[in-house]
Amino acid sequence: MNEIPAPETFPVTQRNRAKRLHERASYDREAVHAVLDAALLCHVAYVIDGQPYCTPTIHWREGDWLFWHGSSASRMLKSQKSGIPVCLTVAHLDGLVLARSGFHHSANYRSVMCFGNARIIDDPEDKAEALKAVVNRFYPARAAELRDNDPQEAKGTMVIGMRIEEASAKIRTGGVSDDPADIDARVWAGVIPVETRLGAPEICPKVPEGVSYPDHLAHFRQGRRLDEVLTESQTLYEKQG
Amino acid sequence: MNEIPAPETFPVTQRNRAKRLHERASYDREAVHAVLDAALLCHVAYVIDGQPYCTPTIHWREGDWLFWHGSSASRMLKSQKSGIPVCLTVAHLDGLVLARSGFHHSANYRSVMCFGNARIIDDPEDKAEALKAVVNRFYPARAAELRDNDPQEAKGTMVIGMRIEEASAKIRTGGVSDDPADIDARVWAGVIPVETRLGAPEICPKVPEGVSYPDHLAHFRQGRRLDEVLTESQTLYEKQG
Repeated sequence: MNEIPAPETFPVTQRNRAKRLHERASYDREAVHAVLDAALLCHVAYVIDGQPYCTPTIHWREGDWLFWHGSSASRMLKSQKSGIPVCLTVAHLDGLVLARSGFHHSANYRSVMCFGNARIIDDPEDKAEALKAVVNRFYPARAAELRDNDPQEAKGTMVIGMRIEEASAKIRTGGVSDDPADIDARVWAGVIPVETRLGAPEICPKVPEGVSYPDHLAHFRQGRRLDEVLTESQTLYEKQG
Repeated sequence: MNEIPAPETFPVTQRNRAKRLHERASYDREAVHAVLDAALLCHVAYVIDGQPYCTPTIHWREGDWLFWHGSSASRMLKSQKSGIPVCLTVAHLDGLVLARSGFHHSANYRSVMCFGNARIIDDPEDKAEALKAVVNRFYPARAAELRDNDPQEAKGTMVIGMRIEEASAKIRTGGVSDDPADIDARVWAGVIPVETRLGAPEICPKVPEGVSYPDHLAHFRQGRRLDEVLTESQTLYEKQG
């Protein structure tokens, strides 16, 4: 079967077109995936009776599909099988930008907003696949070392999925952007980088003697950047199929 | 004038009551403020024509009020002077929790969801105050070293504010919570800590000679945790009034 390759950019509509600072925006599929794959945490916005909710949760990606676990939207999703509109957002903070004027203070960041229709993944095979993927996407090959979920666990876990219909990435990098008139001010200006890194793994004291740190976690080394490690996990996961 | 002290907990309603894992939830005012004050980035959810949006942005707090800059909701806010319902969420990732079964994999985190009615702060004095606060809250006493915003800058910056009507904090800390039946499995289980820290300040190459790193940034030292530094900034800011 011939697959139709996905276009290189997401469509731009009223919904995902950047409203502010559009020079920082991109609709490029690879750019969007890169920001998503570098993160464990996302924020999902949805509406119940006109009230917006913003829930932080763990997300994972397969192609243009995003998945996450049940949330307070679950009850509503159960009654609306066709799904509900959501916006799933990921943001990485990369630096504090201190300018010579209050106005030009800023932050370096990478973010994406993804729009789609979220629904419950309730086909048993799809769901089992997704529950394996959430382990293997972060810790490739780990699921094979664990027992299978028992039926009660699978039943007690809700998986929500959505195809990314539209998305936009927004990225700021680099130094201070000051007004030329302010450049000679005797004010310290610059960037203070911000980085999220891994600490030393803390083994559970009840792990039997002789069990050592596994190969599949080799890239989770103390001091490494979390975004780089998670991107590496996604690449490994996609290779292992 | 006698001030009525704020109650120690936020009211619990259908909107902010924790729907899942309620043993991790708290409605305590100090717990909510602590999670907010340790972060620069928040995510704001709002609704336009039934479509939810989740925008990452910088937030700052004064008492039970939260502030942030304009967003794609701005146009709607301009037409609805009485405000729109929003949910402002902050989440810190503190660790990866690797269990002996897929089901018990988790993350350590601190999060809050705050509910209220957002409106444009357009009174000129309130707005000038808020624009000074966004600098001083993160970098206490810095605003005094900068020129004032010119009228065009103040006009070009939108400040949105909301009083926190309801809020909940949700926190997971500690080690793996495995099923007792799985404890003897020969699987590496434990926690990999995640920490967000400051890098070495990078001075803008155009800063005049003789300008050194300022005292008001002394606590932004390389290697320090961002959440601790920002909490310290908030405390300093509140003391300086």
